[in-house]
Amino acid sequence: MAGAILWLTGLPCSGKTTLAQAIGPRVAVTEGPVEILDGDQMRMHLSKGLGFSKEDRDTNVRRIGFVARLLARHGVFVIAAAISPYADTRGEMRRLAEKEGVAFVEVFLDASLQSLIDRDIKGLYRKALAGDVQHFTGVSDPYEPPVHPDIIVRTDLESVAESVQKILGALVARGILSRAVTG
Amino acid sequence: MAGAILWLTGLPCSGKTTLAQAIGPRVAVTEGPVEILDGDQMRMHLSKGLGFSKEDRDTNVRRIGFVARLLARHGVFVIAAAISPYADTRGEMRRLAEKEGVAFVEVFLDASLQSLIDRDIKGLYRKALAGDVQHFTGVSDPYEPPVHPDIIVRTDLESVAESVQKILGALVARGILSRAVTG
Repeated sequence: MAGAILWLTGLPCSGKTTLAQAIGPRVAVTEGPVEILDGDQMRMHLSKGLGFSKEDRDTNVRRIGFVARLLARHGVFVIAAAISPYADTRGEMRRLAEKEGVAFVEVFLDASLQSLIDRDIKGLYRKALAGDVQHFTGVSDPYEPPVHPDIIVRTDLESVAESVQKILGALVARGILSRAVTG
Repeated sequence: MAGAILWLTGLPCSGKTTLAQAIGPRVAVTEGPVEILDGDQMRMHLSKGLGFSKEDRDTNVRRIGFVARLLARHGVFVIAAAISPYADTRGEMRRLAEKEGVAFVEVFLDASLQSLIDRDIKGLYRKALAGDVQHFTGVSDPYEPPVHPDIIVRTDLESVAESVQKILGALVARGILSRAVTG
């Protein structure tokens, strides 16, 4: 398997980490090496000290993209799960990957805001709506949804299993994964 | 080949990048995937905005170590070429790697200060000695040489080819590379 980058973008609590962790093992068992680059963990390891301005968010996304390309270059199937709110920066990550011959597949995890608030066990949306948390994406900070994502999953309407099948199916259709992964 | 981390540490101009670029292709041709994580490039991609305090230098080294382990985990032979001046932080990188079953080999690039000054085409040592560059490792910032490095090369007394052979030989002796690489 050639390396590839599956880039999961969406608002907080849209299910990025959940989907990444559901897809990862499926790919690893049938296809080869997989690495999940999770936004929160990447911030801890690569971007401690950065804030939530556009510049700092972009820097964090660029670092995730940089590491993703390094891994994909060596045949790893990389799942990046990060809010990555700015469309131009996601586009930049795609261009840089494709320039290196690495497939880049953008998945938009869409869901209604109410469903995200309902699902938010940490209560961050409520705090943001009350003004107690600043720079919260989707409330007090922008999120630019992809205009032409490769795949859209509706995580408020689909089960995790359904979204996983949709994503794996699309990756098979593009020739990035073999049919075995959906079996 | 299982992944491994070859960690080159030494003062500015001690030849880290030169040795990494000489070793990389030799390993890649006979053994498999190789990635060079060069300190200056890593600063640009992963640590822009960080300064040269102990804390910031350590953060930079930890990010290099983090990416090195990610790659080594997937079978890549990683060459990290970074001043990495603090012994405890290098030790931490070794422990974290070995905890994951990744071989970690520390190479100390030793050379006399005068030879480094003579070799410094950018004149940074002279500027540091004149007080025009602050926080310059070896002049105005500390460098803690490894007490028990796995390999020592004397880059002021050995040719690049000799240092390369010494390092490759030691990696073969440890079973990290096959004999073919020294042929």
